[in-house]
This record gives sequence, structure tokens and C-alpha cells, in this order.
Amino acid sequence: MTFQQKLDAIVEQQNSLLCIGLDSELARIPAHLQNKLNPQFTFNKAIIDATHDLVAAYKPNSAFYEARGVEGITELKMTSDYIREKYPDIALILDAKRADIGSTNEGYVKYAFDWLGADAITLHPYLGKEALKPFLDRKDKGCIILCRTSNPGAGEYQDLKLDSGNQAIELYQRVAKNVANDWNYNGNCGLVVGATYPEELTIVRRIVGEMPIIIPGIGAQGGDIEKTVKA
Amino acid sequence: MTFQQKLDAIVEQQNSLLCIGLDSELARIPAHLQNKLNPQFTFNKAIIDATHDLVAAYKPNSAFYEARGVEGITELKMTSDYIREKYPDIALILDAKRADIGSTNEGYVKYAFDWLGADAITLHPYLGKEALKPFLDRKDKGCIILCRTSNPGAGEYQDLKLDSGNQAIELYQRVAKNVANDWNYNGNCGLVVGATYPEELTIVRRIVGEMPIIIPGIGAQGGDIEKTVKA
Repeated sequence: MTFQQKLDAIVEQQNSLLCIGLDSELARIPAHLQNKLNPQFTFNKAIIDATHDLVAAYKPNSAFYEARGVEGITELKMTSDYIREKYPDIALILDAKRADIGSTNEGYVKYAFDWLGADAITLHPYLGKEALKPFLDRKDKGCIILCRTSNPGAGEYQDLKLDSGNQAIELYQRVAKNVANDWNYNGNCGLVVGATYPEELTIVRRIVGEMPIIIPGIGAQGGDIEKTVKA
Repeated sequence: MTFQQKLDAIVEQQNSLLCIGLDSELARIPAHLQNKLNPQFTFNKAIIDATHDLVAAYKPNSAFYEARGVEGITELKMTSDYIREKYPDIALILDAKRADIGSTNEGYVKYAFDWLGADAITLHPYLGKEALKPFLDRKDKGCIILCRTSNPGAGEYQDLKLDSGNQAIELYQRVAKNVANDWNYNGNCGLVVGATYPEELTIVRRIVGEMPIIIPGIGAQGGDIEKTVKA
């Protein structure tokens, strides 16, 4: 089963488009858990058990686990194993924002898809399609490319206007076009567009048609859910 | 001591600008090591002991260790500890090509600088300066931004011409300008420019003056050392 098929099935089954981030920074989880064994996993397990009938996907961000070195990464592995074993229909997206040159990416492919068992990973576009081939070639897995990110300063490069030979579009639109028309040869690509930018989201949706878009930024970052759904 | 001071001192002391990559993919290290305890660390230790009087920096790429999950990451930690304890004057650059939104980057800061004890890290520019602040604010550490990478397909985005309002330069040149003129407020930035692109290297050196540039791609990737040094 491909990532797209798994996603379609769970969205249908749960009647939900919700993806819950598991950004379980140690210092911000409840105090009574912080001194216990496996605090990040214990916290995640409680969230997962409480929400498993409401979601299409879980998305742990690797940074919050790497922050604790091997200890945290072990808890990320426990979290991934738990989701895959207990709720195998729910999509598991590793938010790792990786991208290196070709052969090096094989290491990240192994980390995300084979060792952690994630169904999809988030990726930077800056090195181009050729570099990301080890990810894109994995027909069974999802490659979710950063397009227009949710942070306040996202526009520094992403909004740069390209010259008229490039049809005077902005860089993030060019990323959306390239991914939709060229990178998606296995039908396994998606994009990241922040909920904090509903206008850009409308433009990207027009460019990419039915392609999955992860839309972070609802909640703490101030993204508006109504505007986002409309866009 | 800052990364720049450490780099200046070791370059002077060793009379060397050489940075050795520790990209110790398990399947490609000698067969007799592969079944031993800590194969990646054992291989790295032999390289480090044989070259410590010739180099300014070591640069392990996190991907080759993450490929093995916790086991490999433990060997990356052992490698980092070994360099810092035995050869504390040599710069340790973590090639991790990270970049997330602001608060999330604090996790990667902890992983690279505090847990592994690296002196510098490589970073993607796509999310902008605002997102990378947790790295850039670390005055004691180096932030080495991907500018013109060494892979064959690097130009897909990096060579895109920006419109005339942006002075009709290419994207990688804009990255070099922004890093030199705006991101480098703590004097701790550097750039990555591939040895496979000596013309672009000449242009970047002109833009950024004395800023450190890591130039990967000598050897297997075909970068020419003479052209690179001249550029």
C-alpha cells in the first residue's frame, strides 16, 4: 500500500483530515512525567490513545527527540513503534525537514522509512529533484516538500519573484509547480504550506490539484482553521 | 573561544585548510570492521589518528549514522567525544543540513552543539533568517549555510534568476549576500559551495569576503583542487 492509498483510506475511515503534531519538548510536558521513565513516549502514548479515533495522521518532529540525544531518539522510536503496532491504519509522518546530496540521502531514507517505519517525511527543496531521488524513488512512501512554511520570516526566499523568463512567479510557486509536474513521477509527493498564509495556500492548491498538503500552524502559531479549510 | 577563532588558530597551527568528511557508511567500510563492536567509530578513530596533524576540521555527516538508528548515533557521539577529548584544537563540523521553524530549531541546537559538542553545523536557507535565529544567536558556534551545493542538480533552484527588482542575480548569490550582510550579526556564519562549481565559488568569494566557505566535492564527486584553491 502506498502513502497516498493509506492516507485516502484513513481519511475516509475516520472522516477526518486532522494531523496531530507530536512535538513533545521535554521541558513543556507535565511536570509529573518529566522525572519518570520514558517521559516523551509516555506523554505521546496518552495523546495517541485519547485521539486515535479522530485523526488521519500523527506527525512527530524529530528535533524535539534529537535534543536529548540517544535517549530522546529511543523515545521517538518507541512512539513510532507504538503507532504502527497499535494503530496501523493511521499515517505516520516524520517531520524531519531533511535533504542532502543523493547518496547521503540514502542514510536518511533508512532512518525515517526503514528504522523508524514512518510512512512519509518532510523535505527541503533547495538541493533539487536530482538530490532527493533516494526519497522520491520510494514508491511506497510519501515525500512532503517544504513549499510555503508557516514561520513569520518564511518570505525571505520563498516569496522572491523570479524573472520573467520564469513567468514572474514567486519561488514557493515554482517549488509547487516543479513538485507537481516533475518530481511526482511515483505519485508520492506532497507539500507543506503554513495555515498562517491562507492566500498562498489558495494559490498552491490551484497549482497542485489533489496533491496532499500538510498545513501546520493551527493553534499556537495563529493559523485560522476556517480560512484554511476554505483555501 | 568562537568557531571563527578556533578555525583561525587551527589553520595557522597546522598550516592546513583541509576538512576531512567522516561519511562512514557501514556497507563501505572495510569488511573486517563491519562485524566488530562499534564499526563506524573504530573506522573513524583510525582515520582521525592517522590525519590529526594534517587537518583543520573533521566533518561527520549525521545521515550515515542515523541510517543505523540509535546504534549509529551512539557511534557518532563516540566519534565527536573522541575528537573533542583527544584533539580539542581541531574544528568539529556536524554536517546535518538542518532547518526548521524557530522554536523547533532549539532541539537541533541542543543535538548538535550541546549533546554532540560540535563547533558548527550546516543549515538550509529556505526558511529564512528569522527561523534560524536559535542557531545564529549562538555566538560561540558556527552556522554554515548551504549556498551552491556540489550535486549535479543543484541549479534547479539555486541558479534561478531573480527579477530585476532583486538586481537580476541568481538565488544562490542572494543567499550569499543575505548571509554576509544580514545573518552574520555574530560573525559566526559560513557557507557551503561545492568544489564542482569553481565559477560560482569565485562569485561567492567576491560577495562574502573573508567568510569561511566549506567546499565539499574534492575526490569522488570530481571537484578539482587546483581550480578550487584559485577560486
